[in-house]
Amino acid sequence: MFKIGLIGYGYWGPNLARNFNVNPDIQLSAICDFSESRLELACRFFPQAETGKDTEKIFKNKDIDAVAIATPVSTHYDLAKQALLADKHVWLEKPMTETVQQAEELIELAQKKNKVLFVDHTFVYTGAVRKIKELVDKNELGDIVYFDSTRVNLGLFQQDINVIWDLAPHDISIMDYLIPLKKLSVSATGLKYKGNGINPKSMLTIDMENYVVAHINVSWLSPVKIRQTLIGGSRKMILYDDNHPDEKVKVYDKGVHIYETKEDLYRLNVQYRVGDMYVPKLNNQEALAVEAQHFADCVIKGEKPLTGGQAGLEVVKILTAANQSLKQRGAPVEITN
Amino acid sequence: MFKIGLIGYGYWGPNLARNFNVNPDIQLSAICDFSESRLELACRFFPQAETGKDTEKIFKNKDIDAVAIATPVSTHYDLAKQALLADKHVWLEKPMTETVQQAEELIELAQKKNKVLFVDHTFVYTGAVRKIKELVDKNELGDIVYFDSTRVNLGLFQQDINVIWDLAPHDISIMDYLIPLKKLSVSATGLKYKGNGINPKSMLTIDMENYVVAHINVSWLSPVKIRQTLIGGSRKMILYDDNHPDEKVKVYDKGVHIYETKEDLYRLNVQYRVGDMYVPKLNNQEALAVEAQHFADCVIKGEKPLTGGQAGLEVVKILTAANQSLKQRGAPVEITN
Amino acid sequence: MFKIGLIGYGYWGPNLARNFNVNPDIQLSAICDFSESRLELACRFFPQAETGKDTEKIFKNKDIDAVAIATPVSTHYDLAKQALLADKHVWLEKPMTETVQQAEELIELAQKKNKVLFVDHTFVYTGAVRKIKELVDKNELGDIVYFDSTRVNLGLFQQDINVIWDLAPHDISIMDYLIPLKKLSVSATGLKYKGNGINPKSMLTIDMENYVVAHINVSWLSPVKIRQTLIGGSRKMILYDDNHPDEKVKVYDKGVHIYETKEDLYRLNVQYRVGDMYVPKLNNQEALAVEAQHFADCVIKGEKPLTGGQAGLEVVKILTAANQSLKQRGAPVEITN
Amino acid sequence: MFKIGLIGYGYWGPNLARNFNVNPDIQLSAICDFSESRLELACRFFPQAETGKDTEKIFKNKDIDAVAIATPVSTHYDLAKQALLADKHVWLEKPMTETVQQAEELIELAQKKNKVLFVDHTFVYTGAVRKIKELVDKNELGDIVYFDSTRVNLGLFQQDINVIWDLAPHDISIMDYLIPLKKLSVSATGLKYKGNGINPKSMLTIDMENYVVAHINVSWLSPVKIRQTLIGGSRKMILYDDNHPDEKVKVYDKGVHIYETKEDLYRLNVQYRVGDMYVPKLNNQEALAVEAQHFADCVIKGEKPLTGGQAGLEVVKILTAANQSLKQRGAPVEITN
Repeated sequence: MFKIGLIGYGYWGPNLARNFNVNPDIQLSAICDFSESRLELACRFFPQAETGKDTEKIFKNKDIDAVAIATPVSTHYDLAKQALLADKHVWLEKPMTETVQQAEELIELAQKKNKVLFVDHTFVYTGAVRKIKELVDKNELGDIVYFDSTRVNLGLFQQDINVIWDLAPHDISIMDYLIPLKKLSVSATGLKYKGNGINPKSMLTIDMENYVVAHINVSWLSPVKIRQTLIGGSRKMILYDDNHPDEKVKVYDKGVHIYETKEDLYRLNVQYRVGDMYVPKLNNQEALAVEAQHFADCVIKGEKPLTGGQAGLEVVKILTAANQSLKQRGAPVEITN
Repeated sequence: MFKIGLIGYGYWGPNLARNFNVNPDIQLSAICDFSESRLELACRFFPQAETGKDTEKIFKNKDIDAVAIATPVSTHYDLAKQALLADKHVWLEKPMTETVQQAEELIELAQKKNKVLFVDHTFVYTGAVRKIKELVDKNELGDIVYFDSTRVNLGLFQQDINVIWDLAPHDISIMDYLIPLKKLSVSATGLKYKGNGINPKSMLTIDMENYVVAHINVSWLSPVKIRQTLIGGSRKMILYDDNHPDEKVKVYDKGVHIYETKEDLYRLNVQYRVGDMYVPKLNNQEALAVEAQHFADCVIKGEKPLTGGQAGLEVVKILTAANQSLKQRGAPVEITN
Repeated sequence: MFKIGLIGYGYWGPNLARNFNVNPDIQLSAICDFSESRLELACRFFPQAETGKDTEKIFKNKDIDAVAIATPVSTHYDLAKQALLADKHVWLEKPMTETVQQAEELIELAQKKNKVLFVDHTFVYTGAVRKIKELVDKNELGDIVYFDSTRVNLGLFQQDINVIWDLAPHDISIMDYLIPLKKLSVSATGLKYKGNGINPKSMLTIDMENYVVAHINVSWLSPVKIRQTLIGGSRKMILYDDNHPDEKVKVYDKGVHIYETKEDLYRLNVQYRVGDMYVPKLNNQEALAVEAQHFADCVIKGEKPLTGGQAGLEVVKILTAANQSLKQRGAPVEITN
Repeated sequence: MFKIGLIGYGYWGPNLARNFNVNPDIQLSAICDFSESRLELACRFFPQAETGKDTEKIFKNKDIDAVAIATPVSTHYDLAKQALLADKHVWLEKPMTETVQQAEELIELAQKKNKVLFVDHTFVYTGAVRKIKELVDKNELGDIVYFDSTRVNLGLFQQDINVIWDLAPHDISIMDYLIPLKKLSVSATGLKYKGNGINPKSMLTIDMENYVVAHINVSWLSPVKIRQTLIGGSRKMILYDDNHPDEKVKVYDKGVHIYETKEDLYRLNVQYRVGDMYVPKLNNQEALAVEAQHFADCVIKGEKPLTGGQAGLEVVKILTAANQSLKQRGAPVEITN
């Protein structure tokens, strides 16, 4: 068992606290936030944890082995750096950092310090995504041809980041987990919103190796919540609807065939295999609980994080390219590797 | 009552024939196709119509007042031009022509000949779209901020056009009907499909005046059929789901507020009005029947087509720009006006 | 190929005419109805068929081999009897007759005359029900434990029959086809509707051998159309939703275990097998087309009807018992065999 | 603020504890259960409450003003009686008691002792049911004609009660709250389950004054969870789907007209008003939180319980009649008043 301090008890922090608290390997021993009222709440629900406004106290506390950082993205780099320098393992919210360089620095520092650098890409730990990964790994889908994700809702605006940085990390991290191909370039467009620089609705196209493409549609301006991903493989296709109560993953026995000549295309009509659909049973354990246990295993047993610094860096690279493309109204921006 | 000749009895032609046949103002008097077996079918269902392979016979027949053209897009310009030159009114399938110049020529010719040039943008005549138009015209939605449409299915490949030219005309014509703002530029990306030039999955972004944006997602590679459009207004928002049997149009009492300064954004949380949703009753008449009657009214009473040459031209302009942008992997292409 | 005469061109008759018309083994040669305007319609769509008001003409016509009867149920017995006496094969709408005795007479007469007596239980010929039957026959479901069907809509009232006789024949014929067990008794309750004798909403319970039970909920007073059947087996369960566009039959890998002692019940928690669900591909051919072909095969090749007089009689027995139980407000009425 | 002791920390008890705990007027001061492991859990989440196995300690504790009883129904009467005799207010789980007489005794005793006797009919406090009640009270529905509820799932068997006593109290309490008419008789049928006396699937018909009828379908044997209620009024109808995430209550502008003569019925076709549907915004507060506050208001301010002893008694009367009818396979059993 090891001790963890939590910095940031706003929207997401309480979920981390609750899951750390029930994990047998983790002891939630400190909670830090700048808001008095948030600290009161923290104190009420987690009386055993020390609460306070001073992050220094957590970094200096030798008993604390790990720090979870659930603050605005602009503070991630500084706080994570301090934590690593103070020899703490780090759990960092998504997106990992504001820049590619910051992410690379943290990765290097964690390596030097031999500490776990863990990025909270929660969706990777859902029963749905793990089941899809299992199907991909067993080659049930064949070659993946496309990934098409819609994540829209009537959201609260973030003041410091646009909708791409807010919502797309979920889709990008799922995509990167399922399709570990090299990402080549990003095109992003979006609602300009009277030129005030805030982007509340956006479309991303990510080109990968082997002509694989991802389309991601994110928005804070939808009257309904939609979280729907289509994944097309050469053998089967998947519809992953995260809102569906008990049919989140549908596997269609229909494959996309890829043809290289026009002549091949003429034969396409009969090539579409149309067959049964099935809905696999999913593990219903809360994703954060699974993730907290995996983090504990990384800290205690030295396991390699499924969503470590490198996964976090991949997301930041794509987000950074997306922001550049957005300024050029969709012109493709290469991803440097 | 006037006589019509139908050229093309493939996938869509039979629907035209059936609707022309039951319209009291229209007499279906000739059907033309290149396929013997299609003509046999036509003969069986419409014994009163003359059938044959020679389009010339239709153009030369003085009794025929109008010609409906339901052939591949590459033949639209030639056939429509011949029809107009032979003093026929023209019903033309979408997309109207292969190039902007062709569309402009046909418009000019129709004007000179004083004939109706009618483009079959069927969705404009559905009960759903007409109801939405009614709400827009009554300013129930307030200022429209965005239009976001998904039209995907497990489609048959078209050999002569890509998925944008096949499916997006539906969404573009609906959008243009509901939001008659000036279209400024188009960005299009898509699945490259091993470089064979066929594009079976695509994303379009259309920038309009007043910072209004449209996102359109079209695909032939989805395991499920989705036809879903979100329309965001400053007062209300709409979800239009064409697949839903009896709840096609949902009107949400939630509006998008547009803010021009960051300070305004901080107050946004409480500004989202969240209220009731309602599902208006729609007219269930078949869209093509409504459209056929409107065409008859244009021919007989001189009404102005809701979807005339100009509407067809708008669609071709956007499709043309989309094709250019697609080659530049999403770089925006201005729409010339 | 044989000739058929159709009596009754009201709500259902046109569907029969259309399907007989396209069947290569059937020639629709006469249509009879009492309404002038209906006959005009019939004439327009089926110019090759003779139309008229006199049923005698059909019975006397030696060229006509079969008669389809799509008239109100009160006329079924008389018309079918005349048809059989005139040596015609008979296609009879559901419910077969008004009384058990009438049904038995017709069965006997058909046997004596060696003619096909076919009852139109359309749902038996749907892709969905045939697929479920296939699963039952392969013992995929194990022992069937219950059948629970809801068939409600905002219907038009029938003036001559209550909702049980109007809607329940569908569910009863499906049930009888899937579960050919002996039916023991019926309990029926319903909305009394101010004592006017018309029953527009009803619930049926049918007890069968082996403690199997069926519950059937029918109504003309629902604001929405629901057609949903649950079938519970000892190995698997099925949800059959006839309204779903492409997921009509869902097969759950969850079985009902039957326990005979209380001690067994204590172990039940862990006994529920919960597993995957799958949606088999169905044959999408129109049920009536399949049924018309089967009728033709019975007439021409002497095949035994899947839904012959005996199947029709079973339904009438249950409906008759239901009416008696309804008068006794749910008291069970035995089914005599 | 008053102190409450909770007896029973099994399936439902923790929900009560959690809601009592956050209510500003209630102090959860004791938790009692027979299971050591349940008490450990209680202790962990509610360290401020005393825990133990002895109910006597709670009854004797003069500081405790109220007792919440969340134990099997067979113990309700004894525990509630002891609590009232010890001058405690009582929160009692549903169904209130095993017999009508027990319920009547408790009501009398509570009156004599001048204590609150509160029955936990949770659904009455949901935003959905309160909204429907509001519509009923405003006469939006007109006269209610029927109530039709389905509540099925793959449930755990209860060892001491059948499915009617387990699930139907929810529907009956909702029905009784919305339709406060006199209940006349009950007919109940169900799956007999090889004669072992356990009834895991059942249908109820409840006849009320004014020819109003309720149909209730409950089952532990469904592969899917359905919680759906149709309510038909003479002016509007409602579909209440408790499983729908954001469209739980749909109000259809379609009314049922009641006719008293056959002649009236002939005019029915045009009488169905078919119009818009709307989905009112609901209060999303957890029902138990609303209910806990109402209980506190009853205890502190002397408000009259919305779901007091009389409401609990009504449910027990119907359940009792249902059990009798079940033994007679559906024969109607009068409800004594």
